[in-house]
Amino acid sequence: MAVCPVCNAKFDSGDYYTMATHFINLAEDSDAYHVQWINRNISRKKMDITQFTSAIENFYNIAHGGIKEWIINKFVEQFRGENPHPFILKMQSYSKPVMMGYAIEHYFFLKQWVKSCSIIISKTDLDDVQRYEIENILSEYYGRGRKKPHIELLLEMGEELGMDRVQIFATEPLDSTKFAISRWKEITNSCNWICIMAAMHSLELVANSKLNNYGAKYDYFNPGMLDSPLVPDSVKKFLGEGYKSDYSHSFRALDIIAKYCHDYNMEGIQDAYLMSAYAFDRYLEARMERGEMFENQ
Amino acid sequence: MAVCPVCNAKFDSGDYYTMATHFINLAEDSDAYHVQWINRNISRKKMDITQFTSAIENFYNIAHGGIKEWIINKFVEQFRGENPHPFILKMQSYSKPVMMGYAIEHYFFLKQWVKSCSIIISKTDLDDVQRYEIENILSEYYGRGRKKPHIELLLEMGEELGMDRVQIFATEPLDSTKFAISRWKEITNSCNWICIMAAMHSLELVANSKLNNYGAKYDYFNPGMLDSPLVPDSVKKFLGEGYKSDYSHSFRALDIIAKYCHDYNMEGIQDAYLMSAYAFDRYLEARMERGEMFENQ
Repeated sequence: MAVCPVCNAKFDSGDYYTMATHFINLAEDSDAYHVQWINRNISRKKMDITQFTSAIENFYNIAHGGIKEWIINKFVEQFRGENPHPFILKMQSYSKPVMMGYAIEHYFFLKQWVKSCSIIISKTDLDDVQRYEIENILSEYYGRGRKKPHIELLLEMGEELGMDRVQIFATEPLDSTKFAISRWKEITNSCNWICIMAAMHSLELVANSKLNNYGAKYDYFNPGMLDSPLVPDSVKKFLGEGYKSDYSHSFRALDIIAKYCHDYNMEGIQDAYLMSAYAFDRYLEARMERGEMFENQ
Repeated sequence: MAVCPVCNAKFDSGDYYTMATHFINLAEDSDAYHVQWINRNISRKKMDITQFTSAIENFYNIAHGGIKEWIINKFVEQFRGENPHPFILKMQSYSKPVMMGYAIEHYFFLKQWVKSCSIIISKTDLDDVQRYEIENILSEYYGRGRKKPHIELLLEMGEELGMDRVQIFATEPLDSTKFAISRWKEITNSCNWICIMAAMHSLELVANSKLNNYGAKYDYFNPGMLDSPLVPDSVKKFLGEGYKSDYSHSFRALDIIAKYCHDYNMEGIQDAYLMSAYAFDRYLEARMERGEMFENQ
């Protein structure tokens, strides 16, 4: 089965003709979300149904480099390529409101993150997968010895930027964050461990500092921020932590997926990635939207 | 809804009359499992339907002491009271074959344990519950700093008793272990977090050394084994670890359940406990059965 990452419409496995028709019809109806997805992932050029079908077929093709490279290439194209996600552009210079928006929406992301990752442990018997996820939960959520977890660094950043953590807990996430979380919940509850892993850990590529070989044109954020006297310490600590660790972390997950993928339905893994990447795209918009709310206050 | 812990037959909530009829009918048909459950949990005396209904009603009554005491009292009665589980009797002196049986069957128990506990993290947003379960996974399965996890101490015990760990991994668990695991899987997949917690962490009461006030007549094992020159070091380490920590650990889980139970269906929590305790009863038989297989070799 193939799935439209935007609206979750289902198609028979490999039926890219019907999928292309779906996209073309919605583009003709000027459906903003589908148009945006096509622009960011397929092409900005107008195509007829034959060209579009062939473009989608190409899009799913993993003959070169296997699933690991496929996920990295797709992620880079959608978020950090020539035409990057607007949130990545925002992160090329320090902006207090953007980081405040980040602190709020990302708290809710991390609350879902720990749920998605812990269910992976319960859906497999593989020791390396379970250990990877336990380590991930420690570094993101619980802490390791004296090392604070990512969620604590996030909350401390929020505090230095002027927001009490109780205020963050009590905030309602924005609609795009809610949409993304509900999709990650759906993936978490209905998919097998390898699909959940592809869906969740691919997202850590956003902060991976070693993606230049894969065509990344932008860093996650301007690394000059880490040395700038204008940037608060807690922001440096929060961003620096991910900058140092997420590249090995995200590659390790993709290596695990590549190791076991042949025992599973490959298209299912690709769909889980695409569904999640689309949710992430919308979620990054929520970070910006929240930042704009602070900017306009 | 009330549930027969033996065969999972369902009854309307509080309909103890029909439940009593179910037990009486199966006892009259000499169904060994139902008879055994009645003997260990209700009474060894023959009762008519009125007496039996009232006994079941009494059995579910948590008016005195609430859910924490109810679980402890039920557990003690079934496993460590006047009429203890035969496995507890076996553990009153050191037996190499029994510990070998324990090492094999318990490996499969712990593989399921980590799955049941990790899903609890994914089914709640409560920070204290999630942290408790992460800590539990570290001590049972992953390790904390230099402290080896319980599963590693188990495997090292198996090795000192003459069984390679690869041999343990490759062994098929006995039918009673399989039955128990499949029931824990069912609870894990279908129940809410508090029911899974009641089902799983109540079982740690087996090794709790502070149950004398609750009527326990037997220790989990003869504590003299910890000082005996006849007992291998790895057995002492394995048993000693649980002996030192399980009492606070199991009480902490029951305190969490007591804290939040009023937001949930109480009978559902009781049923989850009863279903799991019955599975545990059968699983302890598998430990003995495996021990006997070594004894007869």
